[in-house]
Amino acid sequence: MKKKKDRRVTCQALDITGGFWKEKQQLFRRVTLDAVYDRFEETGRFDALNCSWKEGMPNKPHIFWDSDVAKWIEGAAYFLLKQRDEELEARVDELIDRMEKHQWEDGYLNSYFTTVEPEERFQRRTDHELYCAGHLAEAAVAYAQATGKRKLLEIVEKYMALIDRVFRQEHSAAFDTPGHEEIELALYRLYEYTGKECYRRLAEYFVDTRGTSSRDETYRHADQENMQSHLPVRQQKTAEGHCVRALYLYSAMADQARIDHDGEMEQVCKTLFENITKKRMYITGGIGSTHRGESFTFDYDLPEYTAYNETCASIALAMFCRRMWLLEADGKYADCAERAIYNTVLSGVSLSGDRFFYENPLAADPARNAFNASRAKGLQEHLPILSRVKVFDCSCCPPNLLRFVGSIADYMYSVSGNTIYAHCYMEAEGEIEVSGGRMRLKQETGYPYDGRIRILTETEGACEIALHLPSWSEQWKLTVNGKEAEAVLRKGYLYVQREWKCGDCLELELDMGIRFWESNPRVIDTCGRIAVTRGPLVFCAEGIDNADLLLRDVRIKPEQKGEIGSRQMEGTTLPVLELDGEVREQEEELYIKPGKPLRRVKLHLIPYFAWANRQVTSMNTWFLEE
Amino acid sequence: MKKKKDRRVTCQALDITGGFWKEKQQLFRRVTLDAVYDRFEETGRFDALNCSWKEGMPNKPHIFWDSDVAKWIEGAAYFLLKQRDEELEARVDELIDRMEKHQWEDGYLNSYFTTVEPEERFQRRTDHELYCAGHLAEAAVAYAQATGKRKLLEIVEKYMALIDRVFRQEHSAAFDTPGHEEIELALYRLYEYTGKECYRRLAEYFVDTRGTSSRDETYRHADQENMQSHLPVRQQKTAEGHCVRALYLYSAMADQARIDHDGEMEQVCKTLFENITKKRMYITGGIGSTHRGESFTFDYDLPEYTAYNETCASIALAMFCRRMWLLEADGKYADCAERAIYNTVLSGVSLSGDRFFYENPLAADPARNAFNASRAKGLQEHLPILSRVKVFDCSCCPPNLLRFVGSIADYMYSVSGNTIYAHCYMEAEGEIEVSGGRMRLKQETGYPYDGRIRILTETEGACEIALHLPSWSEQWKLTVNGKEAEAVLRKGYLYVQREWKCGDCLELELDMGIRFWESNPRVIDTCGRIAVTRGPLVFCAEGIDNADLLLRDVRIKPEQKGEIGSRQMEGTTLPVLELDGEVREQEEELYIKPGKPLRRVKLHLIPYFAWANRQVTSMNTWFLEE
Repeated sequence: MKKKKDRRVTCQALDITGGFWKEKQQLFRRVTLDAVYDRFEETGRFDALNCSWKEGMPNKPHIFWDSDVAKWIEGAAYFLLKQRDEELEARVDELIDRMEKHQWEDGYLNSYFTTVEPEERFQRRTDHELYCAGHLAEAAVAYAQATGKRKLLEIVEKYMALIDRVFRQEHSAAFDTPGHEEIELALYRLYEYTGKECYRRLAEYFVDTRGTSSRDETYRHADQENMQSHLPVRQQKTAEGHCVRALYLYSAMADQARIDHDGEMEQVCKTLFENITKKRMYITGGIGSTHRGESFTFDYDLPEYTAYNETCASIALAMFCRRMWLLEADGKYADCAERAIYNTVLSGVSLSGDRFFYENPLAADPARNAFNASRAKGLQEHLPILSRVKVFDCSCCPPNLLRFVGSIADYMYSVSGNTIYAHCYMEAEGEIEVSGGRMRLKQETGYPYDGRIRILTETEGACEIALHLPSWSEQWKLTVNGKEAEAVLRKGYLYVQREWKCGDCLELELDMGIRFWESNPRVIDTCGRIAVTRGPLVFCAEGIDNADLLLRDVRIKPEQKGEIGSRQMEGTTLPVLELDGEVREQEEELYIKPGKPLRRVKLHLIPYFAWANRQVTSMNTWFLEE
Repeated sequence: MKKKKDRRVTCQALDITGGFWKEKQQLFRRVTLDAVYDRFEETGRFDALNCSWKEGMPNKPHIFWDSDVAKWIEGAAYFLLKQRDEELEARVDELIDRMEKHQWEDGYLNSYFTTVEPEERFQRRTDHELYCAGHLAEAAVAYAQATGKRKLLEIVEKYMALIDRVFRQEHSAAFDTPGHEEIELALYRLYEYTGKECYRRLAEYFVDTRGTSSRDETYRHADQENMQSHLPVRQQKTAEGHCVRALYLYSAMADQARIDHDGEMEQVCKTLFENITKKRMYITGGIGSTHRGESFTFDYDLPEYTAYNETCASIALAMFCRRMWLLEADGKYADCAERAIYNTVLSGVSLSGDRFFYENPLAADPARNAFNASRAKGLQEHLPILSRVKVFDCSCCPPNLLRFVGSIADYMYSVSGNTIYAHCYMEAEGEIEVSGGRMRLKQETGYPYDGRIRILTETEGACEIALHLPSWSEQWKLTVNGKEAEAVLRKGYLYVQREWKCGDCLELELDMGIRFWESNPRVIDTCGRIAVTRGPLVFCAEGIDNADLLLRDVRIKPEQKGEIGSRQMEGTTLPVLELDGEVREQEEELYIKPGKPLRRVKLHLIPYFAWANRQVTSMNTWFLEE
């Protein structure tokens, strides 16, 4: 089948050349890549690939370690794609050699089961075998694209043939669909890279079989909702269960809708997107209101201090959004992707690039964490940590960040017919194929800190460029070569049709004023409070910058313009805001008559993603309204 | 030692003759007494006293069942005190006979250990033996006072002699102080009733040994704070751990301070009282911010929806307050007792008298409970139930309510020298001994719904009457025989010195206007919200009375007078309030620009204690401020 409808423009075609993401990618190449590698080395994740662990030895392999390694390889691949590096490739190749050695003759590939429980192959749905396989497939494609080296791809293809036989043809595994989704979207990726029908067929099989099998068990402590198996996927109308699993599944469903022109599936995806973004998503693009099952809960349940908001879940949400904008040109998908990327995803990593958050709450109360830590284990509650750490036992987020930042240019463009859509703005250049030919574009921008985006054409030709107009931009100005441009605004995109000359400059100036937001009145925890954004960034206040203020008690007026400044932190320049506010004087009594005088104060805010980069301190995102 | 300083005026001396508490006592005599009895009968708590249970039989005895039986007997005793009843006494006597039969020759008395683990007597600190012994002692005193029957008292005295020997003299138990306090205050009660030094000595031993023993272990899941053993009690400055245990201990400490004229201990009690009431108590007089260990947490941590606020803990807080006002004439103790009694304690029982709450949260969201109930057990959180039930496995609260309501007149008066203090107002009469002689007083009042309190003297004589002026009463009027009375206001009491004639009428008219309260700005959960009270009652709004309102989003102005009305519910007349408020229109979007119009609404409130008497519905106590 010919790939007629591939509207993707990926990081293969685009080079990040400057600005916000260049700085971030350089940091990740310089620090994060090795920081994750070193932690994996220390914790035995690479040794596990030798399959030589024996009972009594340290670092017992874990069922999801292969996925960690795969994500690290995938991340490395994106950096190699832009700059080959012998030493780094040697490290990757060596890991691939280990995999090759322990791959079974029939294709089976899993370091945990090979080493620890070989007789339990494909017996336990909840044990992440197919999840690991999916990540290996993603790594294989990325590494082949980056280096031309196909050994990992061959290993993976051999493994996928076994999986296809065992699951789709013979039904000889003990379960029918994976407990942790990932293989579905990986199979679509493999399909789009290799063009081989078998992968599309197997992906469809896993997606459509989900929620229909009586053999698909779940964890003893969890329910079928937790792994989206409570209903056939086409009947699902609300986002349920483990967020990462859910969004990986929805991503595959969106792939399927696009690849198969499956309108019914597209509608299911849209319904799920609406449920998430209108009822179950934090203003930071975080999802997962509870650590219990790392899951969605119920409509409008968005507690601040105990928000789970796993970094990986917001990465997965961005992945889903990108697939949705390939289906439908509506700016809400890019709005949502930016919310996730510029807030929760980036909050997952320190400004230094070597420390990580798994959970990203909306507010922090060090007193609560300190009290909790002081208690006996049996009396402790689960709370998000307030300081990023170098490694987690369950270390999915760090390598996921690595591959995400490495391939961030995936989120820039897409194509439909003769139209180039520009979704998320970043400084980059590359060649894009439209129906009328090839266009080379160079984008210059200080986004997300600055609202000016310039797209320079470096080739000539007639095509339409559709620029995402973020929903937060109340005013905007669009010019071509300095003159006001004719454009059609439709569902969050400004369409500019033109016979482009080489050197034309299409410029969009967005309104970067400070914005204030209420949450829906049905949200119990933030009802009556307001949040502050500028551009796609949510801002928060840290105690360290507001030493004399009780942050929860600060009241701000939404009409004010505020002061925008900047500050250095960990070698980068961050925008900071100063707002006028009011606060009560502190009181001795617990219950007080209303009407005590308020004093005027200045509230200092930093981007949410930059919180917790100095010391453990209180943090707040939702403020009282003056 | 002569009881020189007994300032108590107990329910023995006072008869409730009408008003709020007469209705409540009649309901409890008619319904609650038997409702609790029947549940205990069904669940095997009375059968357990036969000590004939064998492995494999239903209703295995539990370590705290003796305390449930004892509290029921104590409750029955208060009703018998006012009206003898052969049938009821026969039921009690029969239970006492069972105890007599299974009491060991050396005095030991515990149905669980006698039946299930006789070799484990006094081996496990956390197994409630001394707690049960304490409740038996309280029951014994109450039953002897009510009926003159001393069999249970003799049984208890024999048991206490054993406890004194094993714990204080021989140290032959495996631990030094009880895991669950109660015996300490019971020993002081036994001391004050019998005059026997040994009980005072043993009480002192338990109180002062606490937190000093290396043999005093705690639960595997808990810490020493949970049972107030982290420090010698005299060094404790903050209220920690399991709230019921803490307040039973503090009650005994206050007894000790009074009985021993122990100024140091009195100061410790005052410090703990301040910590509770200024930093760790809900506006409803509830204590215990978390179900984890049923415990205090840290300063200003007062979440609404997950508040534990055990009914028994507020009963214990009232008990502590009563002991504190015997030490110091300061209205804050009666203020606090009323907060606890008229809100959290009474919320513990349905208006029908036969259903109970163990936990008393400040707000209820049925959607959260429904979602939680829909999840697999392993993904559920602990939430307060939203509908009262007939029985709990751990059923301490129902019989505790029974004995508390039965002896409510304990909270009316105390005496110091020639001064009679009137603390909590209720319609009752009785004779009170002051240094100058005996005064017979009759109190008439519709309190807590009406602010007029009339105290009629039915004897003559010179003495001072000190009337509690609740802190919420902004205005008040005091008259004697209709003429303005001369009075000194000191620390929340109006002192009236007079040569009283028979038939004099001392009348206090309190200001029953609606009051509004902010919480301290440090309270994260209610910061920026206001609560509504009238008299000692906190008011709340239920969804069922405010069908079209999102209660969390209602804004009210604290300046308004409001409308006070009444309504019938379950055979009683309740005051209800109507306030003017504003609310946002409901929105589709999750994040909204501020400044949307508000619509004017009426907010309907009922007394907090009356919530959840109709159907499961949302409930809210803290509202936004207009």
